[in-house]
Amino acid sequence: MTQDSGLRTQNSELGTQNSFDWSRGYASRIARFQGSAIREMFHWAQLPGMISLSAGSPAPELFPVEPFREAANYVLEHDAMAAFQYGITEGYVPLREWIAEQLISKGIHVGVDEVLITTGSLQAFDLLARVLLNPGDAVVVERPTFIGTLQALDSCEASYVSARMDEDGLIVDELDQQLAAAAQTPKLMCVQPNFQNPSGVSLSLERRKQLVQLASARGIPIVEDDPYAELIYEGAPLPAVKSFDTEDLSIYLGSFSKILMPGLRVGWAAGPRPVLEKMGLIKQGSDLHTDGYIQRVINHVVRSGFLPGHIKEIRAEYRKRLDTMLAALAEHFPPEARCTRPRGGLFVWVELPEGVNCNDFMRQAVDQGVLFPPGQGFFRDGTGQNTMRLNFSNQTPDKIREGVKRLAEVIRQHLANG
Amino acid sequence: MTQDSGLRTQNSELGTQNSFDWSRGYASRIARFQGSAIREMFHWAQLPGMISLSAGSPAPELFPVEPFREAANYVLEHDAMAAFQYGITEGYVPLREWIAEQLISKGIHVGVDEVLITTGSLQAFDLLARVLLNPGDAVVVERPTFIGTLQALDSCEASYVSARMDEDGLIVDELDQQLAAAAQTPKLMCVQPNFQNPSGVSLSLERRKQLVQLASARGIPIVEDDPYAELIYEGAPLPAVKSFDTEDLSIYLGSFSKILMPGLRVGWAAGPRPVLEKMGLIKQGSDLHTDGYIQRVINHVVRSGFLPGHIKEIRAEYRKRLDTMLAALAEHFPPEARCTRPRGGLFVWVELPEGVNCNDFMRQAVDQGVLFPPGQGFFRDGTGQNTMRLNFSNQTPDKIREGVKRLAEVIRQHLANG
Repeated sequence: MTQDSGLRTQNSELGTQNSFDWSRGYASRIARFQGSAIREMFHWAQLPGMISLSAGSPAPELFPVEPFREAANYVLEHDAMAAFQYGITEGYVPLREWIAEQLISKGIHVGVDEVLITTGSLQAFDLLARVLLNPGDAVVVERPTFIGTLQALDSCEASYVSARMDEDGLIVDELDQQLAAAAQTPKLMCVQPNFQNPSGVSLSLERRKQLVQLASARGIPIVEDDPYAELIYEGAPLPAVKSFDTEDLSIYLGSFSKILMPGLRVGWAAGPRPVLEKMGLIKQGSDLHTDGYIQRVINHVVRSGFLPGHIKEIRAEYRKRLDTMLAALAEHFPPEARCTRPRGGLFVWVELPEGVNCNDFMRQAVDQGVLFPPGQGFFRDGTGQNTMRLNFSNQTPDKIREGVKRLAEVIRQHLANG
Repeated sequence: MTQDSGLRTQNSELGTQNSFDWSRGYASRIARFQGSAIREMFHWAQLPGMISLSAGSPAPELFPVEPFREAANYVLEHDAMAAFQYGITEGYVPLREWIAEQLISKGIHVGVDEVLITTGSLQAFDLLARVLLNPGDAVVVERPTFIGTLQALDSCEASYVSARMDEDGLIVDELDQQLAAAAQTPKLMCVQPNFQNPSGVSLSLERRKQLVQLASARGIPIVEDDPYAELIYEGAPLPAVKSFDTEDLSIYLGSFSKILMPGLRVGWAAGPRPVLEKMGLIKQGSDLHTDGYIQRVINHVVRSGFLPGHIKEIRAEYRKRLDTMLAALAEHFPPEARCTRPRGGLFVWVELPEGVNCNDFMRQAVDQGVLFPPGQGFFRDGTGQNTMRLNFSNQTPDKIREGVKRLAEVIRQHLANG
């Protein structure tokens, strides 16, 4: 049962000359995946003194550790055996009931069997993509798009119809014309209607209705990815896109990542039962079901009545950080930079003049102690080099001011040299 | 923001005549998925008085709730912010280090960057399948095969090379001849070397070496799925298949489901870093990373030194249940039934004479208060109708005796009538 571990180490050091070449057997989807810039970002974010405006992470100092502890111990006391045993793929029924009840306030009316618990809302999207997409199938995405969405679609070898956005979100009229001229009808339209990642923009009420009309007229279903809905700092919430859907042509995705804690990886899909059943069959061959213990703990936390006050607290703090960032951008960024003014969410989106490539000064920014993700990764039409996404939830106001100042200086120098 | 929920209900009741037909847009993989018999099984298992020999569930009364509670509160006290924040896709480093150390006893020598934490070991398999398989690609599976493996492969639209097994596991010589005659070279060979689900059979030492030789000679990598290794009740453990691999042509999958608790959904893959990186990229577009809180709690539990005693306790109890089941089968089952005599794991496998179809008496068994899964679902070559899998870990010895007795009576009647 022993093996010469010395030999094994030697092989590694020699560059494993005699090692098997797995890459010859890779599936065609693998060609879509580039080396990960995010991995390097993570490394840089650990450097001392670095101010990261990069990740889309909530503020960990606001995590509700104490309510979680109480709920965790309650579940251990009262329901440990079921919590730790294999569970049903669809998810813990009381939590699905709670989700169905909450959705009513967004104008969404579903039964408990129209809710599927997933391992983060991104998994719900991945499952839906696998239910619908053969390689080469077209999908409508906003331009720019959440990177996780693009990664899931890449792994299904989707082709993209990139839909332009303005300050009211996806421009539905223009998309309709694009689709009229398109060679193939897309299988799916993907939107993040509230405080979109990465742009920070929301889809207007009128456009929400239009989008459902377009979906119905052209027979293209909608996936509405809505992790940021509760992070609203200004104005009244809008009804969900799905609230205008009377034909079951849309699926709504939600998450506990932003209202509780992302490390737990619990989200959900709400939509027509036949589609959710297919998603569940794929989930059975993937992770079988989502952690039953954590589902029960979350259920206990959200039913304790603690959530409304907690969301209020998050909103107040993030609003302060957003205001700080917008003020710092106005003060320090060159006038050529155009920034969105989101009314919620986690991100401000910056566009520099055409021709500027943000990748060209990312390393200088790192050298100056500030980290940002160039926007190019959020596009699949080869554009976006002149854009960047700035996160304001994961740094204190002081750090935000300092980070924006450092970044502004790097940009000024770059523009001056270019 | 409100919608007429009465109307919505009415639509549902009317059979949603005007609802969108998603099925027109399903991907071709969906045609592989049949209606789920497992779902009905779950329903039947809840009936009062039912003795289920069906699921592969551990005994919940042995779950280490107290050590988990201590570890859970320790993590909340000392590391809550990191535990609840977004984490890296590869997984929590100390837990990966612990896994790498443990693997040495199986003859596997890997570094921490050759371990990927996954949401159950089935997710590791699903990710690997997605790295390697285009639709139609061939995969070698044991005959019979774990259903989760088949579901993951179905969702990649794999084609199957079903390899025959005997009491020493997969018959490698015969597989070699099959492959020599095959039209296409498979992309992957899948084995569960220890106490295989569903057959209970283990791959012999000699066959493990042979399998690695075959993999090397034919250039086909191996995935070694090993969730049951620690559940050994008789004899000495064998070195892992991967321990004979000097060319990095194999990936080893492990799980905490059977040695701790399955509801937590934490497993891992150990193997060549380039392949794990590709698996990680697909995981980034699926569930991003596995629950960071639970990873830390597990790390604390396994490092407390509690595990060896706990595994000893599980072994003693399951061995008693296995012995009970084997004795009951010998006493009650008709002589035409051939049963495996596993030395570990969770299952006994039963073969009835050719021509008998276990699906034909499953409902009678339910009526008599005993539940079993017909074996057909574990095959993809259209055979296996005369087989069934019996679980012995999830019932007390008394229930096992009574369940086997009930089932024996149903089978006797069926054989008498047939």
